[in-house]
Amino acid sequence: MASKTEILRALHQGPGILVLANAWDVASARIFENAGFPAIATSSAGVANCLGFADGERISRDEMIGMVRRIAHAVSVPVTADVENGYGDALATARAIVDAGGAGINLEDVTNVQDANSLVDTAAQARIIEKIRAATDLVLNARTDIYLLSIGDSATRFDRTVERANAFLQAGADCAYVPGVRDAETIGRLVKAVKGPLNILATAGAPSVAELERLGVRRMSIGSGPMRASMGLTQRIAKELREHGTFASMTADPMPYADANRLFMK
Amino acid sequence: MASKTEILRALHQGPGILVLANAWDVASARIFENAGFPAIATSSAGVANCLGFADGERISRDEMIGMVRRIAHAVSVPVTADVENGYGDALATARAIVDAGGAGINLEDVTNVQDANSLVDTAAQARIIEKIRAATDLVLNARTDIYLLSIGDSATRFDRTVERANAFLQAGADCAYVPGVRDAETIGRLVKAVKGPLNILATAGAPSVAELERLGVRRMSIGSGPMRASMGLTQRIAKELREHGTFASMTADPMPYADANRLFMK
Repeated sequence: MASKTEILRALHQGPGILVLANAWDVASARIFENAGFPAIATSSAGVANCLGFADGERISRDEMIGMVRRIAHAVSVPVTADVENGYGDALATARAIVDAGGAGINLEDVTNVQDANSLVDTAAQARIIEKIRAATDLVLNARTDIYLLSIGDSATRFDRTVERANAFLQAGADCAYVPGVRDAETIGRLVKAVKGPLNILATAGAPSVAELERLGVRRMSIGSGPMRASMGLTQRIAKELREHGTFASMTADPMPYADANRLFMK
Repeated sequence: MASKTEILRALHQGPGILVLANAWDVASARIFENAGFPAIATSSAGVANCLGFADGERISRDEMIGMVRRIAHAVSVPVTADVENGYGDALATARAIVDAGGAGINLEDVTNVQDANSLVDTAAQARIIEKIRAATDLVLNARTDIYLLSIGDSATRFDRTVERANAFLQAGADCAYVPGVRDAETIGRLVKAVKGPLNILATAGAPSVAELERLGVRRMSIGSGPMRASMGLTQRIAKELREHGTFASMTADPMPYADANRLFMK
């Protein structure tokens, strides 16, 4: 029987694109599993917000991994965890993810995703990836935030992204993750220049799954999108209740109480 | 300076109705606080689902209180915690809520909200309320689930509810909570028969805040409604992404990333 790591790794080999939904708590993870996703990703921003922190390594490693553990124990499919830049010691974090039941990780090349000046040197990041590769069987999704954080002159971003992605793949990463790119032409060029599977983040204006698949993208994820959609709805419910004393936005299309509880009665 | 317990207690004295939104994680609590609610309640079903449990005391006391503690430390307004029937030892739970920074509790008179046969004897429940009243300054919202769980013949429910609510108020509760009642006529009769502030749960079809206020209701809460609305939205996002490969329901009206993080940068 294949391990969850083997299952997750194989999902990157096609023929179809791997579409991952990103959970932030156990409820969202179970909803995504029930909807048929073959694996569950986590969102560091979503988990951080859920537990009371801004994104960008303000949450402790233990608290982030605590939620990953809850999610990994609650679903049957492989779980890949967003562990930002590794909370000061990415190898220790990777080992803790294995212990928590995770099958993969995302590792960012900035120490704080809210600070464009926190980019880690390419060789140093590659060495961390080599160490994790040597120490664990985790599926490694190596992220570079050149585009996401608009680092450097815009004319240099494509080449810097490709250089970093390929260095990380060479160091043992299974997949290269380039969030912040939405236009099909650049995505198509990245697919050709990056020497391994490419992960694109779905945000407003990004191509659909079918279009990304046609471009040769191997993996698509949705980041903190669904958590922030839920936070937007919660804010609308709050505003309606405060300003109008009504709750139509709350009762419009909820998950019924019995269905919500049934998610956890496996 | 008034304590949070004093502030919360005073909010039950009018002139207006106290409207409480029920949080299930720190993000929802901060959204409700920012919207101007003068106090935050928690939802036991919401917290349980968030952390991977069905409602009805499947979650441990420590895990439930862990989320209450996070919420109480993240907001400036008083927090009142839904602690179900008290997790086997309601007095210990009440003391733990004080330690966690809570200003009030809801206490149910069934040991499992998903089991109509788990109703606690009126006198036994009153004795627990007396003990908590003697040991803590918490604002006690004593709930009776006769209507919510359709306990006994329908013709007996009004009288049984009033008898229990008044026994609990006599034992020291600050407010009586009768979820499961939506029709204005019954609510109006309850207001007259219950010898203390009355809490009504807003669900689909329930009167608006203005109407409840007119009827003399002192407190209104929304239970797991907003969490289940979020779960419904998450399910629609999941379904759209799996079936159509698109994400319009995710990007329609999210909280922007910067706004979400700003909630936690106090």
